[in-house]
Amino acid sequence: MLVDDVPYRSIWRNQKNGSVNIIDQRWLPHEFSIQQLSSTNDAMVAIRDMWVRGAPLIGVTAAYGMAIAIAEDPSQDNLQKAGKFLNSARPTAVNLSWAVSKMQTELEKIEANKRAGAAMALADQMAEEDVQTNMAIGKHGAKLIADIAQTKTNGEPVRILTHCNAGWLATVDRGTATAPMYEAYEQDIPIEVWVDETRPRNQGAALTTWELLHNHVPHTLIVDNAGGHLMQQGLVDICIVGSDRTTATGDVCNKIGTYLKALAAKDNGVPFYAALPKSTIDFALDDGIREIPIENRSEEEVTHIQGLNENNEIVNVRLCPDNVKALNPAFDVTPRKLVSGLITEDGVKHL
Amino acid sequence: MLVDDVPYRSIWRNQKNGSVNIIDQRWLPHEFSIQQLSSTNDAMVAIRDMWVRGAPLIGVTAAYGMAIAIAEDPSQDNLQKAGKFLNSARPTAVNLSWAVSKMQTELEKIEANKRAGAAMALADQMAEEDVQTNMAIGKHGAKLIADIAQTKTNGEPVRILTHCNAGWLATVDRGTATAPMYEAYEQDIPIEVWVDETRPRNQGAALTTWELLHNHVPHTLIVDNAGGHLMQQGLVDICIVGSDRTTATGDVCNKIGTYLKALAAKDNGVPFYAALPKSTIDFALDDGIREIPIENRSEEEVTHIQGLNENNEIVNVRLCPDNVKALNPAFDVTPRKLVSGLITEDGVKHL
Repeated sequence: MLVDDVPYRSIWRNQKNGSVNIIDQRWLPHEFSIQQLSSTNDAMVAIRDMWVRGAPLIGVTAAYGMAIAIAEDPSQDNLQKAGKFLNSARPTAVNLSWAVSKMQTELEKIEANKRAGAAMALADQMAEEDVQTNMAIGKHGAKLIADIAQTKTNGEPVRILTHCNAGWLATVDRGTATAPMYEAYEQDIPIEVWVDETRPRNQGAALTTWELLHNHVPHTLIVDNAGGHLMQQGLVDICIVGSDRTTATGDVCNKIGTYLKALAAKDNGVPFYAALPKSTIDFALDDGIREIPIENRSEEEVTHIQGLNENNEIVNVRLCPDNVKALNPAFDVTPRKLVSGLITEDGVKHL
Repeated sequence: MLVDDVPYRSIWRNQKNGSVNIIDQRWLPHEFSIQQLSSTNDAMVAIRDMWVRGAPLIGVTAAYGMAIAIAEDPSQDNLQKAGKFLNSARPTAVNLSWAVSKMQTELEKIEANKRAGAAMALADQMAEEDVQTNMAIGKHGAKLIADIAQTKTNGEPVRILTHCNAGWLATVDRGTATAPMYEAYEQDIPIEVWVDETRPRNQGAALTTWELLHNHVPHTLIVDNAGGHLMQQGLVDICIVGSDRTTATGDVCNKIGTYLKALAAKDNGVPFYAALPKSTIDFALDDGIREIPIENRSEEEVTHIQGLNENNEIVNVRLCPDNVKALNPAFDVTPRKLVSGLITEDGVKHL
């Protein structure tokens, strides 16, 4: 997608020297910084310290981390060693271990002296597949938006509420929840996006607004508390969110607060969709609320926040008294009864 | 209530010289600052610039502002002039104009040369009545908490979720939503309070935690997104919130986001109460969602936030890209169907 009207992906190979580059997302929206991943350690640190985030992007970054390791030492030993090292970056991210395993399994089939080229080609392919998946999600989701646009008069926009950042920055390109928005925008369907700021890490305020701003999609930032009121007032036509894990029965695990928006959508007759690649569906689970473990993250994400001060310096400030205890569950589960449907690369599955 | 183990009210008369003092709440929780109101202008500025906030406290501050004006010039003209001036501080606050009108009506009945003493006595009385009202709300609400405590084993605490600050800082003392908590704590009923941070102004993180910390009530800060998940997991026994305006039919207008918590409470069988003085009930209204106008406040409250930096300076930081549009509705309406009951000074009215 566009940054200052130049097309970017969140991770890419330099056309000239083949190096792997990423956007260091820690400083967005205040600073746009590009970093080169020159070693497996660079890739591990980028994942661990959240230079990159979002399940699909973490997976692809790990794949490139493996490819860099194999270029240096294509041995079977190093395949295992590099995989273990990369997996240590964020132990709970499913896409990370999935990408590492896939690289290991495919490369083991190839003679060691041919692994370097194959590894980089495989990582490139995984990146490309992510983009194609998201493009397909976009096409299917945009049809839902187009149907609502049909009911509007005088070119009024379809008003879409989203939570967190399931945007192109969380994937290689296009995003999942944002893919239908970008597709609709490119099809000249008038839309306006309500962006939940998404405390505590504020990915909506920091990343989703930045994406939409650079890609010229009309949007308005709101606090997480506001969505229910907007729905009561008839100001939301559809909710589209991402998902970190969805049960086969349709319980959607996503960023904390998603459940509250789904409740309000149900109470006000607003359709509520999750956009996700099929790979996010966990067929081993039936009851998401009981079975999906929810990570409690650091208290400091609640007690402090990062922002830009008046001297244009990125600083961290404390929001509450010292010594206040906080609890920081990172995700919640929206039960299937509140979900209108799932938008995947295969189409829209209504629940 | 206690601040560093010394009892305070949010507004009080100095025992020696009779001066009116307030806590300048703008810098809480980072700085505890006491200011003297020496003129009607001081009172107006304190209300306008939110040195004091909360409907009951605004009303009492205005009453003292009138008393200070009348001490300087007890004429009928000045009664009107001072009232108009104080009313200009926050045009939409109902308690402000109510307190000003009450002072005018009562003082008009008295000869001009006796008005000064009467005015200060009347303001004192309004402050005292607020405290007594809140004490009564506390007694009635604590019974609800005590009933839940009966169902607990091993002295497990009753877990109460609250939103925003309907605490003693929003009133003269005790608070409305917090009054049952303080009462329960004083009755040795084990409680633990989940404090919603309450974006955008973060009164929960900044004020409610500060109150509870200084008064030794166990509590945990959470982001506004987290309450639904906690209720799903059975970690909330009761919700108690305040109200800015409640219809005779029981629709509760309160800080933005209250409605989302009420939806989650209903979905999980958690009782949901609003604690409020009877004076907050507006008998002219039937349908809160359609009839109560909701104030949209400044975009900057959403795009920026105040906190304490690493040098212990209170600073304002920007959270999103420059030029992002924001919408900031300050309140929402929780429909009666989601409200278990109203706790007033007269008792608990179940809906």
